[in-house]
Parts: sequence; structure tokens; C-alpha cells
Amino acid sequence: MHLQIFATGGTLDKVYHDALSDYRIGDPVAPGILEEGRVDFRYDVESLLKKDSLELTDDDRALIRARVAACPHRHIVITHGTDTMTETAAALAGIADRIIVLTGAMQPARFRNSDAAFNLGLAVGAAQSLPAGIYIAMSGRIFEAGSVRKNRAAGRFETLADDRHPETP
Amino acid sequence: MHLQIFATGGTLDKVYHDALSDYRIGDPVAPGILEEGRVDFRYDVESLLKKDSLELTDDDRALIRARVAACPHRHIVITHGTDTMTETAAALAGIADRIIVLTGAMQPARFRNSDAAFNLGLAVGAAQSLPAGIYIAMSGRIFEAGSVRKNRAAGRFETLADDRHPETP
Amino acid sequence: MHLQIFATGGTLDKVYHDALSDYRIGDPVAPGILEEGRVDFRYDVESLLKKDSLELTDDDRALIRARVAACPHRHIVITHGTDTMTETAAALAGIADRIIVLTGAMQPARFRNSDAAFNLGLAVGAAQSLPAGIYIAMSGRIFEAGSVRKNRAAGRFETLADDRHPETP
Amino acid sequence: MHLQIFATGGTLDKVYHDALSDYRIGDPVAPGILEEGRVDFRYDVESLLKKDSLELTDDDRALIRARVAACPHRHIVITHGTDTMTETAAALAGIADRIIVLTGAMQPARFRNSDAAFNLGLAVGAAQSLPAGIYIAMSGRIFEAGSVRKNRAAGRFETLADDRHPETP
Repeated sequence: MHLQIFATGGTLDKVYHDALSDYRIGDPVAPGILEEGRVDFRYDVESLLKKDSLELTDDDRALIRARVAACPHRHIVITHGTDTMTETAAALAGIADRIIVLTGAMQPARFRNSDAAFNLGLAVGAAQSLPAGIYIAMSGRIFEAGSVRKNRAAGRFETLADDRHPETP
Repeated sequence: MHLQIFATGGTLDKVYHDALSDYRIGDPVAPGILEEGRVDFRYDVESLLKKDSLELTDDDRALIRARVAACPHRHIVITHGTDTMTETAAALAGIADRIIVLTGAMQPARFRNSDAAFNLGLAVGAAQSLPAGIYIAMSGRIFEAGSVRKNRAAGRFETLADDRHPETP
Repeated sequence: MHLQIFATGGTLDKVYHDALSDYRIGDPVAPGILEEGRVDFRYDVESLLKKDSLELTDDDRALIRARVAACPHRHIVITHGTDTMTETAAALAGIADRIIVLTGAMQPARFRNSDAAFNLGLAVGAAQSLPAGIYIAMSGRIFEAGSVRKNRAAGRFETLADDRHPETP
Repeated sequence: MHLQIFATGGTLDKVYHDALSDYRIGDPVAPGILEEGRVDFRYDVESLLKKDSLELTDDDRALIRARVAACPHRHIVITHGTDTMTETAAALAGIADRIIVLTGAMQPARFRNSDAAFNLGLAVGAAQSLPAGIYIAMSGRIFEAGSVRKNRAAGRFETLADDRHPETP
């Protein structure tokens, strides 16, 4: 496997700037997490955008789509802000022969108790295991694009049918 | 999905005891990691053993096998020391209709720069995405049991064929 | 020693709220840091304010002064935002028979690589070792109030005389 | 202030070696902690020994004493294992005109919840604030050498008189 990671910003990559008394999107944290994860596959991380996902425009999504479509690698993880992750997933519809997994974080990766490392692991595990398609890896779950929404108040991703605890064994 | 986690010990769960000037296996860290990961599925974590995997006996593996075979849930993650993870995977051969993923860590989860959270995410992502079978999730990769070994000197898991960087796109 | 800690907010106590896509001042982190520091003295932590120090008003400083002046304990640490820490120190002038040390952080304590634990240790070490007075513990140094400023661009505290690297042995 | 740090090993500097399934003393962590602490003074860190303090010999203590006595700087912090920290402090008796503070940690600095950063801050705060002498900075307190013991069972340092909670205001 050669994994292509496209970083677009979001909470995952947020850093704190004392001089601004504010948070900004920093450089992608994915390389550091993969190093900590002691991964043994080849990968590239490319920073496409450094934005809160609420600020992403149609042009930004067109850029992401173009870069994914042009990517020579089959396994693609996109790190992304959580608020409009499902919109970007929708904008990728129709790209064939790729396993595309979007993930992000509810707490900046630089926090001690962030969900970032777990989520990136989740995405990498899914990217290796699923058939071609577009997926969202959040809240410990793998969703097919189009079947999922962010429940902002509850701080989680859930299926549109709200069938989040099906009684499978 | 209802995820069953069986904890057996290993580096993942190691804590430091000042009074002993030594490390011991502590309580399972999996619940804390899942909480940090803000997972939104049901799960149980059961501590079966608290051992370095070099100390696991045939009886221990029989216990693990019995508990896995009796588990009513389809998705099972086993946290385990890395040194004999492949042996325990072999001891589970023949259990049908389960997706069983073994994972662990090269650095204790309580360390700042541990691979534990990433690895557990990797295992959870794989457990949701794969057909029934027995797998090892380490080094950022998902291996089928029987096809993998730990390369202790290199600090990684790799395929028996050493075909770890196949030229797939 | 019985240590009184007054928390007023600042970067030290910042948490990230996904639902707001923003940081807010959370509950004081000092109790957690002291627990991690395995301290063996008695202490109280009281949250007086939860503000960025740029937002502190004259009334806020009057409140802080009143609480410090009324405090029955000799050793007092005030956790505070860094931007106006020196102004609050000035507002405490004239309070006698107390060892008052203000400290804070350039990075939220909840970050992995925060200066928070080090700074609180610095303040606690100084509070036990100095004669009565008002001090600022930042940048690894102990300054007397009135002799120090924050150099926001450089991200450090320094003496007004800029004599920050005197050639003492 | 120019701070000289001598590292001698101890839990503070422990790392985990997967290939050995064991902990070893690693490189000094003090430089990383000072960097995180964003300190703004000059300092040197020299690694004298890499030992658990239970393994320190008379020769080791003679070496430490010789290096401290020869040090041109007035402010000295010694990072040290906790079990025999008081013995090394005793071996430094009679060195004049230095402020010597020994500190260490009950949990390795590489742990998330270590006391290491707090303790090093405590030592640095004390080293700047005290008259010449030999001190131990542990359990959040500053002890004069000769007045303190480690209570191993309780996991803390305390005065010989066990007068650890005097009723000072």
C-alpha cells in the first residue's frame, strides 16, 4: 500500500498562537501521528488547504476533487474539519477505483486527550480493508458517504437514519 | 456494531511503579482510548490476563480461545503483547463467523508518544470493514493471521514473504 | 505550607469547544497539575474569574486584590493570562506579609507540549523560597513585580531593562 | 542566571525499549522540558551518569561531587533517581557558594501524566530564589538536605521529623 494523505485543515491541525490569543490552522499533524504510529508503509502527506471546514468554498472543494481524481494512488485519506466533512465527501461522488476515507478530530491533535491519533488510525485501517468508495471515519465508526451527518450538539457523527445502535451481534 | 475487547496485557497496558522501580501490567487502557476517541458504538472491555506476551502459556491461549469462541458478538479486538501476538492469532484458527483483530503497542499507552491510540483505531477500523477472519493490526497495516511476523530488531510487523512494500499504486 | 491558588483564567485554562469551533476558558487546571506533581502540601484552588487577561477590568482587579488581601494563607499563587499579568501584579502593590506569585502559560495546559506544568512548578518553588513580595514566574524566571514586561512578539517575559542575560556566573 | 544541569539518570529519564521488553535510562529529558517551558535563561545540560539511583556507587557520587565543585556556575540543578537522592545530597555537603537543587520524578518524563516537568520547574524556581545551600525539590516542596527522606511506601518525600503539615498560615 502507498497511502496518499491530503490535509485540508480543520480542528485536527489547530495550533495556539499566544501572540494572537487565538487558534490557527497549523501544518498537517498527520506525519507526526504516522511516525508515532510506527507505520511501515509508504505515504505522502500534502497540504492542500489550511481552513476551518466552515470556510471551505466551492472552489476549495473543486480543488480537492481535482487532486483526488488525479492521484495515482488507490488509498487516499483526507484530513478535514468536521463541520462540512460530509459536503466534501458528497463533492467527491463519482470518482472511481479509489478508497477514499475522510477523517478529522473534535479536539486538536496537539491536545493530550485528542481523538486525532485514534481517528487517523481508524481511517488507515478502513482504507486498507474496504472496497473502492467514499467513506467517513469518525466517532469510531466507518460510514459510507451520503449516509451520515454530524450531530453538532451531541459532538458525534451518526447515520442519517439515526440508526446508530443497530442490534447486530 | 457491538465491539468486544479482550485485554490480555502487553506493553500497551504497562504502568510504572516507583516503589518497585519497575513496570507492571496495569488495568486495560482501551476504555480510556475509546473515550478519548469519542467513539459512538457499544463496547465491552474485559481483562482476561495481565501478562507480557512472552509469559503467556498454552493454558492462557486456551483461555483466550475459549472466551473468543463463546463471545456472542461478531466484532472482537484483542489487545496483546507484541512478542507472541502471532502465536495467539494462530491459536484462534478455526473460529468461524467472527472478525477478530489483535493489536498492541510498541510503547506503553501512558507514554506521550505511544502508538497505542493509533493502533487501537487501526484495529477498530479494520474490525468494521473486513470479512470474518483473524487479523493483526500493527505497524499501520492489517495482516491476515499466518502471513505475518514481528521483526523485533526492526521494531515492526512484516509479512512472512517480507513483501512489505509491494508496488501497488 | 498551605498554598492558596486563585485562578483567573488565561491561556493556561483554555479548552476547545468543537460545537463553537472556538476556545473558551475552562475550569482551573491547577488541581490536575498539582495531582500530577504528586505534591504533598495542603492547598486550595479557587476560581475567581474565567477570562482572557486582555478582558480583565478594573473591577476584576479590585476583586482579585480583595481576595488576596483577605486570604489567611501566606503563600499565594495566582494563575493568570499573560497579556496583562504585570498589570494585575501592579494592582496588588502594598499587600504585606504575603508571598504572591503570578504565573500562567503560553500554551494551554491541555496541550501535550504546554509550559503549564513547568510554570506552575516554578511558581510553587518560588513561593516557598522567597521573602514576602509580589513576583511573576514566567519564561523559567522569577521576576519582581514592577521590573518585568511581556515581550509579546518574542513570546517571553523579560526585565524592563532588557537585562535578561546578565553575566553572573 | 546561567543554570548548570547535571543529569545522573533515574526514573525521570527512563525510556521503554520494546526490543528488550524493558526500561532503560535514556538521554536526559531536561533539555526538552526546558524548551517546553520556554525558558529564557542560559543553561547547559550535561549527562554525568545514566543509572537508577539504587545502582549509584561511592565512585559515582565522588564524580558528581567533583563536577559540582568544579562548576563555574552558581545555580546548579541535579536530576537524579529518587531512591538515593538524599545520599547524593549528603555527599555534596561542604560545597560552598552554590545553590544546588536535586530533583527527579516518580513517573518517567515521557509519560503523559509524569511529575517531571512540574518538578523541574519547582527546582528551577527554588534555585533562583534560595541562598547558597543544598536542597531537594520533590513532592512539590523544597527541603534542605539532611532534613528529608523518601517514604517509598507512600511515594513521597517528607521531613525526617515527619512534620510535613506544619500549621503555618
